Amino acid sequence: MSIRIKRLTLLIAVGLGMSSPGWASEDLKDVLKRRGLSQQDLLAAAKTYVPTGKRDEYLAFSSGGHAGQVIVYGIPSMRILKYIGVFTPEPWQGYGYDEESRKILRDGQPPNAKEPILWGDSHHPAISETEGKYDGQFLFINDKANPRIAVIDLRDFETKQIVANPLFKSEHGGAFVTPNTEYVMEATQYAAPLEPNKYVPLERFNDEYRGGMTYWKFDRKKGRIDPKASFSMELPPYSQDLVDAGKGPSNGWSFVNSFCSERYVGGIERGRPPFEAGCSARDTDYLHVMNWKKAEQIVAAGKAKTINGHKIIPMDVAVKEGILFLIPEPKSPHGVDVTPDGTKIIVAGKLDTHVSVYSFDKIQAAIKAGKFEGKDPYGIPIIAMKDALDKQVQLGLGPLHTQFDSKKCVAYTSLYVDSQVARWDFCSGKVLDKISVHYNIGHLMTMEGDSNSPKGKYLVALNKLAIDRFNPVGPLHPQNHQLIDISNDKMHLIYDMPLPLGEPHYAVAIDADSLKPGIRYKLGTDSRSDSPHPGAVKAGGEKTVKKGNKVEVFGTLIRSHIVPEIIDNVEVGDEVTIHLTNLERAQDETHGFTVGGYNVHASVEPGKTVSVKFKADRPGVYPYYCTEFCSALHLEMQGYLLVKPKGYKDSGVAGKAGTTYTKVDFDKQYKTNIETQAVIDSVVAYITSVNYKDFPDVVAMVEDAFDQAGKIDGVKAKMDVAVKAGDWNNATLWAGQWWQYQVKTADLGLRAKTYLEQNGAKKVKK
Amino acid sequence: MSIRIKRLTLLIAVGLGMSSPGWASEDLKDVLKRRGLSQQDLLAAAKTYVPTGKRDEYLAFSSGGHAGQVIVYGIPSMRILKYIGVFTPEPWQGYGYDEESRKILRDGQPPNAKEPILWGDSHHPAISETEGKYDGQFLFINDKANPRIAVIDLRDFETKQIVANPLFKSEHGGAFVTPNTEYVMEATQYAAPLEPNKYVPLERFNDEYRGGMTYWKFDRKKGRIDPKASFSMELPPYSQDLVDAGKGPSNGWSFVNSFCSERYVGGIERGRPPFEAGCSARDTDYLHVMNWKKAEQIVAAGKAKTINGHKIIPMDVAVKEGILFLIPEPKSPHGVDVTPDGTKIIVAGKLDTHVSVYSFDKIQAAIKAGKFEGKDPYGIPIIAMKDALDKQVQLGLGPLHTQFDSKKCVAYTSLYVDSQVARWDFCSGKVLDKISVHYNIGHLMTMEGDSNSPKGKYLVALNKLAIDRFNPVGPLHPQNHQLIDISNDKMHLIYDMPLPLGEPHYAVAIDADSLKPGIRYKLGTDSRSDSPHPGAVKAGGEKTVKKGNKVEVFGTLIRSHIVPEIIDNVEVGDEVTIHLTNLERAQDETHGFTVGGYNVHASVEPGKTVSVKFKADRPGVYPYYCTEFCSALHLEMQGYLLVKPKGYKDSGVAGKAGTTYTKVDFDKQYKTNIETQAVIDSVVAYITSVNYKDFPDVVAMVEDAFDQAGKIDGVKAKMDVAVKAGDWNNATLWAGQWWQYQVKTADLGLRAKTYLEQNGAKKVKK
Repeated sequence: MSIRIKRLTLLIAVGLGMSSPGWASEDLKDVLKRRGLSQQDLLAAAKTYVPTGKRDEYLAFSSGGHAGQVIVYGIPSMRILKYIGVFTPEPWQGYGYDEESRKILRDGQPPNAKEPILWGDSHHPAISETEGKYDGQFLFINDKANPRIAVIDLRDFETKQIVANPLFKSEHGGAFVTPNTEYVMEATQYAAPLEPNKYVPLERFNDEYRGGMTYWKFDRKKGRIDPKASFSMELPPYSQDLVDAGKGPSNGWSFVNSFCSERYVGGIERGRPPFEAGCSARDTDYLHVMNWKKAEQIVAAGKAKTINGHKIIPMDVAVKEGILFLIPEPKSPHGVDVTPDGTKIIVAGKLDTHVSVYSFDKIQAAIKAGKFEGKDPYGIPIIAMKDALDKQVQLGLGPLHTQFDSKKCVAYTSLYVDSQVARWDFCSGKVLDKISVHYNIGHLMTMEGDSNSPKGKYLVALNKLAIDRFNPVGPLHPQNHQLIDISNDKMHLIYDMPLPLGEPHYAVAIDADSLKPGIRYKLGTDSRSDSPHPGAVKAGGEKTVKKGNKVEVFGTLIRSHIVPEIIDNVEVGDEVTIHLTNLERAQDETHGFTVGGYNVHASVEPGKTVSVKFKADRPGVYPYYCTEFCSALHLEMQGYLLVKPKGYKDSGVAGKAGTTYTKVDFDKQYKTNIETQAVIDSVVAYITSVNYKDFPDVVAMVEDAFDQAGKIDGVKAKMDVAVKAGDWNNATLWAGQWWQYQVKTADLGLRAKTYLEQNGAKKVKK
Repeated sequence: MSIRIKRLTLLIAVGLGMSSPGWASEDLKDVLKRRGLSQQDLLAAAKTYVPTGKRDEYLAFSSGGHAGQVIVYGIPSMRILKYIGVFTPEPWQGYGYDEESRKILRDGQPPNAKEPILWGDSHHPAISETEGKYDGQFLFINDKANPRIAVIDLRDFETKQIVANPLFKSEHGGAFVTPNTEYVMEATQYAAPLEPNKYVPLERFNDEYRGGMTYWKFDRKKGRIDPKASFSMELPPYSQDLVDAGKGPSNGWSFVNSFCSERYVGGIERGRPPFEAGCSARDTDYLHVMNWKKAEQIVAAGKAKTINGHKIIPMDVAVKEGILFLIPEPKSPHGVDVTPDGTKIIVAGKLDTHVSVYSFDKIQAAIKAGKFEGKDPYGIPIIAMKDALDKQVQLGLGPLHTQFDSKKCVAYTSLYVDSQVARWDFCSGKVLDKISVHYNIGHLMTMEGDSNSPKGKYLVALNKLAIDRFNPVGPLHPQNHQLIDISNDKMHLIYDMPLPLGEPHYAVAIDADSLKPGIRYKLGTDSRSDSPHPGAVKAGGEKTVKKGNKVEVFGTLIRSHIVPEIIDNVEVGDEVTIHLTNLERAQDETHGFTVGGYNVHASVEPGKTVSVKFKADRPGVYPYYCTEFCSALHLEMQGYLLVKPKGYKDSGVAGKAGTTYTKVDFDKQYKTNIETQAVIDSVVAYITSVNYKDFPDVVAMVEDAFDQAGKIDGVKAKMDVAVKAGDWNNATLWAGQWWQYQVKTADLGLRAKTYLEQNGAKKVKK
């Protein structure tokens, strides 16, 4: 018996060398003292710590800000679980480096952009809703810099679509959904002419610059936005800001606030006061109140006009049809948030100390009565503030955004200048509690806190500045998301989480149980289009096809080899497409793929098919390999692309031989394999001696182990052919491959055994 | 007094509405019960929790794998503090989206690559060393896919240089440094012809494919690699793998192991056994033992040849000069690690159950005695394993990498197949402890664990698979870094950290106190070249210059306006360059910048100057803005780029007027300002009444507050001019700008006040 096999047997005999649980030579008191932790710190640690293998209660989807991604983290542990590539290419996911995702980025380019836009300034994520509740199916997010909306499917956490706004040059008020995700809303920020590539001097800002709101129609069955069924509404050149949809009684309406209704144009370099002065001069701006259900009918009735192939309801039509109203709101507001019951709309003016609570009933009464205090310069009726206001509540300096608790009437508002969160009652108008945050909070988030059924429990403060909170990492600081326990009478700050990439603006959190992501694809799936991939093949169906100067490879990936391992029919100038199907079924058995020297990378999860494409623009030898450490033999999961010079003729010089093997080598390998099988059998005996079927993860591992073991017969048959032919070289190599499958089987078996031992598996009677 | 001012006064009176500390309505026992935590979980939580404002003990720099970044996280909290863009563009940092960083990516392109490579497969970070100790000055990291080394400066955590390997097509054994960072080492992985773009059929693999090792000369003063002073050594076409430098007695030597010394070429698609079988057939591979100090002299003596402009020592020269030797090592090894005292070299064979401990003394004795067991096919002398071996220790299945403890002779080795970490004694050969990890560990890291003075305390297991450890996030799983407390007799698993992007291979951790990052740049610095930026201007020096079809803007950024706010002298086809200097001095006061419609983004930290450049390729109106939320008026930090059509003539139609202001408006604003000043004075009175000078962060805030207040006189003067001229419109706007500076001053004052109150400031006697 070889040394390695002896060891394996030994390990099994002593229960895998597991540590006994008697490690605690330092007790809790020692640790608290050594680390300078208070009892309050310990309580916070106990509220946030998630032990190995346990789950977080909520999953947060945070905008990645100007990193252009979405960040997924768990609550209360505040551990980042995934970055999702959205507007910015991300090679780990192959996003922007394989053909399927490149198409998404290509289709999502702004109108007429010549150089591709390969980043985004993502601001506001929104989870799809059914009857006003988060349904956990889709996530939407916007790009402020180049107005766009992306669609992410929460079955696989992949970006499936980006739609570029056909009219806007800037936006901020996206993505926000209506209560059944009929529409994804996107409102402008900085006004500009609506026509693409139209130049209008700033002197005609008031006349020809416009804001707007786009209602993107979401086709839930297809899981994609339908641009043809979408439409917009023209708005004045105020800087529209944030958006919310009505719900319950206010369902069918949407609310958009604004700043710079002064329509001020700066120019400090030419002696004019800057934008910041002119855009904050007046004491009020306007809340836009818009009826989207009626707008939909107006578009259907053919009353919209068309710009750049997109339907838009002009302001005069909107006014005439009674679907657009304004209400004064103090001062340079940032957040507009509809209460869970849909009866009130809360606006926070960042240069005012109040939140203003508007009553939907009062707004409707004023509209019904035709009671307006006047019209704005674009003819839009203005409802008097006093006719719409339920109450104003004084909270502090720089109120921005509001979220809601599971407790009736309880709201939370961020105070930017005060660096605080205020808890208050929007029914009584009472301030209930305040807590300081660090520093300068922008948005805040409670659990499902903008749905019609918030879950309470936790609040996250999305702070804009971290300053002194963390170990210094240079002039560019992380942001700081602070977790606050809101389940008790007083709010309790329990965790500081550095955000290491981008500046998240808004985040949404959903009960983790509402998400049902998959772990594998149906074999041969193009994940970006959710359809069978034309380049997919099954094991044994691999092929390389050359037509003219196009080489197309239909390959597969499995622990631990790529089929094909050599691509040598390529000449300089050929276009090479490599389709790869991951044949694995096992959870987490992703393979990656790249070809050195070319700007391609694919992440190929179990069942997926991905294509990479490039022009072989220079001769040479280019190794390719699996980029995801997939088994002990991962580094050997390699191949060579050879690109011949044009008209290459082989010199005919023979190469020197490498290593060859004899019958002695074969016998040795064969003996090893037989011994290894005995070990595997003993692992199997252990596993089947306990209640392993009660552990779904173990059942999956055992299935995978049988998959691996099942490959042995095939290579054994090849070995037998070689043995019969006296070809000891190939016989030894195929015997080696048999052993590789044994190692993979043993790997899984041992992993399963450890799991069972650590999770209290029990002996079963046979 | 206006409402907002009243509120401010009130807040100060009641101590900012701070919560009292009596929140603990749920006690520790309740929390443990509710969350199902054991006493052991609580102990782990206490060992890892870092309260708000406190610091981590160590900073880890982890490779970002195929995300192409470096990930920085704190230990023991395992919170990610920063992603550093290295091989992949990252817009938050402006990396790849501004001109300075684009140059770094451009200069780091592989030889003759036509389409730019915009990602990397980063594997092994290395911290610069002085006398074998981490000095915290620089970080190096490699790209396996397109052989390159990047240099990151730890003063600002920015990538400063990427050098592409002139010879290799694939690498793995980088970056590893010599004990005084004389060289950064980079070894090949998959062999290929060394000449760029040379095609050689695989039949001549043994004859014309080669491996190699590059010694990149590091110029510490410049903080850059000097490619001209760098050289390589030719190696056989074995798959060289990992690298380590000798230290102490073995200083001057380097060690490289290998797999596939069988020189097997697969081809499963043509009936041959795959690479994984042929590359693991033999029981041993080769450890390469190389004298880099002597190699340096050989190159200086002109004995190297030149390929692609780069000096390389051919194998026959290396053999003749006695600087290259081989030692058999079992089997398909992955890690080679020199002990802290430099006397031993530990190799782990991933398909063997042992670690093999080689003695540097024995190796030298064999070399001195000329005692070799033969030569490899390339004439390299082979030292017999028994002549070099100190001992072999049986650890378990799939041993990979070894790191060291602060305790003498104590080592830790990762066991991939067993999914365990073994603690053992490399002096006595005893196994001391084992712990299970989840799952399939690759590298592992102890604190400063590959320096000559490891710090012990913590170990991180860099696991390749997470499988069931975290909330599911689709088929593509995060990795799992598990933190293990190694300060006691038994190892204790204390934290599971999901790695949300890429697959880290190796990581290095340094005592946080050894890092001294800056928080601002000298005004006008180009951070990528560490030199004054030619586009920098000070406040008041802003200008726009047009020469032919080139428009060059020299602008500035400050809370909260961009100078200039309008760029309107651009015609279609012009090349636009915008240089921006951040005038801020305050910590964390970063501004971002982008122009909608163009693929540019800059992150401009305090003092930095950055340029973005693009071709104005289509007419229209393109808003630009600050992308980093920098003050309450951040959204108003905006401007317009107007691109005129060729030969545009204005229609001369006048625009309608927007909002204008009267003396009444002015008087109101003026009154507000006077009241606000009283409030600021009272905040100042509070701050100066306590020992604020004992708090450096507060001192910085106070300085920043005075900076903001100091701007008031300038705008007041402009207001006075307008008042004198009876220009109430501009008088009101400048009065508004005065108020904006007051708001910024108050923001800082309140932040400082909160800090002082939360951190126990004491009243001082005047």
